[in-house]
Amino acid sequence: MIPNWLRQRAYLTPNKIALSYKDEKWTFKELKQQAMRYAKQLKAQHILPSDRIALLGTSNVEMVFIIHGAMLLGVEIVMLNNRLTKEEIAWQVDDANVKAVLYADQFEDKITSIQTTSIPFSVVRESEENVFEVERNWSSEKTITIMYTSGTTGFPKGVRQTAENHTSSALSSVLNLGLDEEDCWLCIMPLFHISGFSILVRSVLYGMEVRLYEKFDVKKVTDEIVKGTVTRMSVVSVMLSQILEELEAREVTAHAAFKTMLAGGGSVPVDYLSRAAACEIPILQTYGMTETSSQTATLSSTDAMRKLGSAGKPLFFNEIKIKDAEKPNKHGEVFIKGPHVTPGYIGRFKDHTPLEDGWLPTGDIGYLDEEGYLYIVDRRSDLIISGGENVYPAEIENVLAAHPNVREVGVCGKTHPKWGEAPVAFIVLSDVTRKKELIEFCTERLAKYKIPTEIHFVEQLPRNASNKLLRRELKAWLSTQ
Amino acid sequence: MIPNWLRQRAYLTPNKIALSYKDEKWTFKELKQQAMRYAKQLKAQHILPSDRIALLGTSNVEMVFIIHGAMLLGVEIVMLNNRLTKEEIAWQVDDANVKAVLYADQFEDKITSIQTTSIPFSVVRESEENVFEVERNWSSEKTITIMYTSGTTGFPKGVRQTAENHTSSALSSVLNLGLDEEDCWLCIMPLFHISGFSILVRSVLYGMEVRLYEKFDVKKVTDEIVKGTVTRMSVVSVMLSQILEELEAREVTAHAAFKTMLAGGGSVPVDYLSRAAACEIPILQTYGMTETSSQTATLSSTDAMRKLGSAGKPLFFNEIKIKDAEKPNKHGEVFIKGPHVTPGYIGRFKDHTPLEDGWLPTGDIGYLDEEGYLYIVDRRSDLIISGGENVYPAEIENVLAAHPNVREVGVCGKTHPKWGEAPVAFIVLSDVTRKKELIEFCTERLAKYKIPTEIHFVEQLPRNASNKLLRRELKAWLSTQ
Repeated sequence: MIPNWLRQRAYLTPNKIALSYKDEKWTFKELKQQAMRYAKQLKAQHILPSDRIALLGTSNVEMVFIIHGAMLLGVEIVMLNNRLTKEEIAWQVDDANVKAVLYADQFEDKITSIQTTSIPFSVVRESEENVFEVERNWSSEKTITIMYTSGTTGFPKGVRQTAENHTSSALSSVLNLGLDEEDCWLCIMPLFHISGFSILVRSVLYGMEVRLYEKFDVKKVTDEIVKGTVTRMSVVSVMLSQILEELEAREVTAHAAFKTMLAGGGSVPVDYLSRAAACEIPILQTYGMTETSSQTATLSSTDAMRKLGSAGKPLFFNEIKIKDAEKPNKHGEVFIKGPHVTPGYIGRFKDHTPLEDGWLPTGDIGYLDEEGYLYIVDRRSDLIISGGENVYPAEIENVLAAHPNVREVGVCGKTHPKWGEAPVAFIVLSDVTRKKELIEFCTERLAKYKIPTEIHFVEQLPRNASNKLLRRELKAWLSTQ
Repeated sequence: MIPNWLRQRAYLTPNKIALSYKDEKWTFKELKQQAMRYAKQLKAQHILPSDRIALLGTSNVEMVFIIHGAMLLGVEIVMLNNRLTKEEIAWQVDDANVKAVLYADQFEDKITSIQTTSIPFSVVRESEENVFEVERNWSSEKTITIMYTSGTTGFPKGVRQTAENHTSSALSSVLNLGLDEEDCWLCIMPLFHISGFSILVRSVLYGMEVRLYEKFDVKKVTDEIVKGTVTRMSVVSVMLSQILEELEAREVTAHAAFKTMLAGGGSVPVDYLSRAAACEIPILQTYGMTETSSQTATLSSTDAMRKLGSAGKPLFFNEIKIKDAEKPNKHGEVFIKGPHVTPGYIGRFKDHTPLEDGWLPTGDIGYLDEEGYLYIVDRRSDLIISGGENVYPAEIENVLAAHPNVREVGVCGKTHPKWGEAPVAFIVLSDVTRKKELIEFCTERLAKYKIPTEIHFVEQLPRNASNKLLRRELKAWLSTQ
């Protein structure tokens, strides 16, 4: 049993600040009042406890109220990525079989392909309220959120994140990072990703303020770091890079109260680490995924230079092993175990268990050194991480292969100065076609960050004896071009 | 599943300080090495994983090594109170049916009445070592410790404290108190009580230093508080009183780094609260018991004066309710629920479930105010808390009733200037006897703190229509004497 987070928190520390956004602040008591209003309005819109809904919004304060309202009501929330195309959204909504899609009005264009009931936030906001009894406790196995992540097949899988997954993740993290009465976590990561959502969870469990930004604004964010109005934050490398440039341009350092810059979504370039140290920004590199409800391993800032390229050690309640590696430094697939690991998927992957003997195979290749520090040497399934977003080659290949003039296609990642990596496509045509047309074809069907930044026409693709595409060969081709 | 605490902690932060005692310090790696040596020596003494043993020692560093060694080996540990008489110890050892009693050599006199194998620490310390494989994880239900607590019947009950009980207690506490890299918890509470043992648990879960004292030394402890060499500590009122006197005599205040004085074992006098505030000691009053593996509710220091006499609010994962109280301020029995509540007893109380519908009835009478703060108005089963030790009248009555010249006896608590309370006996004699003889009779059979400080001979005892002893009437007699 796990206490209903916001209900318990609003009882324990009603007057602590829970949330700030622009110039406004809300205590936990006020946050609960706002969330309760939305919960009752959802109920009046015929959303009932245990129903599954999808949310499509941005990282603003109304979205936080609706998320907490949905949790108080007890529904399962499919968190939709607002960068997806309407086709991608329709696919996920269909797969998740939700009762309704609730969307911020600005995203009306994104839901035109769905078959399900859809309700704009403006309608919820003006709705009547319908009372209900708030559950005091949740079962540990209760699904709180569902987030879609692609994989080797190119079909997104809806990952269940339970009350226990989220709770143990937040608890493991506090044992690693500590907790102070004055802590305030800056949230510039999308709430529909686990990186952003997990900040909301920490807030209610810790009784900690979240400082929310709808968009990443390097000047304002740097102000907060310099003034010490925030003490912790999560970033991906592309944001870190801009923050460092800003700090260097201003010739200032972070405030002494600023304690943690949690950097996820791929490894941080060494250059950034030394520049961050000069700016007195403690970088903690972390390794996590949707299936583990945020961090599995985290490298402390004091180890950053001594253990270059490492993702650190597991958090307290987690375990990491390298498959079939009896000794340190042996490379193999990274396996993860712990109360933060998803019990499974929904929709068409419902019957696929993600675990082998209780362990989650990540597909990533890595090793543990003599001291037990994790190093990732090769990303799962040729995963491309672009600006912190996961991009799976298979998903892009599936789209391009559907074009009438494309005979074969292979996609791989290429180093990108801003985004870390970006997808590049190699195409064997069956009929003459312009690159521009193929890009347009993708634009209608794929989120912007998935669209290839380069297209190369080739005679044939590298395949092995069983005709399997060798994406690593594509990478090799890139380096010779 | 819960990671084997010390194994995981020594892997994650091997070089952090785990323990300090007098002028020595041990890192988590060193603590594990020491504990492993004792674990292998226990194994060589034929103690096997899953066996149940009893430990009788003081709060010194060898005791910590043996406790951790026993946990690494995977045995259940009955923590014996070293203030008990040999008869009381023999009773518990017999009830617990342990494989062996391990004792500090100085307590040889205390184990002369037991029937079970006994091994002095000096023999363990010199023993050969026998290797074994350390478990990576424990099941949540695994019994880690057993602590005896008396009750209404006067017969001590062996309370099981599981891996989950201890773990959730430490996690709830960290969400309430926070955690800092530099934290160091001063331990002057006995390790055989949950108040002391829980500090060891927090240490391994948090990666936090414990500063251990074998005995409470007011001058040294005050030095630590003033210098800020410790940041948190647990006390009972009698210690707090001495620390305040010492601070006042020296005309100094606590160091700014000193953050938490957790005060348990009965409510803290108002006078102490204001004096503590003047000395800049943040007092957090707490309500807990053996059955809840330490704190259930804790009052923050900022609420201390506003909520005088309150034990605070429950910790995050816990719930408190007042039986049959529909509204605030209604008095009734205090019920507790949460992952920190014992699943039950061992020995002769094995089949007595402590829970009613998932809730632990405490026997204490209290109420929750409008804001949900807990107030205890009457202690369970006429419990007397003397210097932090629980004393049950029935246990003393059972002993005195066995004296040939005693016809009837009733015991109650009387306010004591030093210990808060102390037991007082009312006796109806069947034959002339001197008080001194009765005190000697008790001394052989009862721990010192249980021996009545006063004996009153009376003609008859106050009883109700069903002949039940009315202990509250005894209290009333005291005030008229």
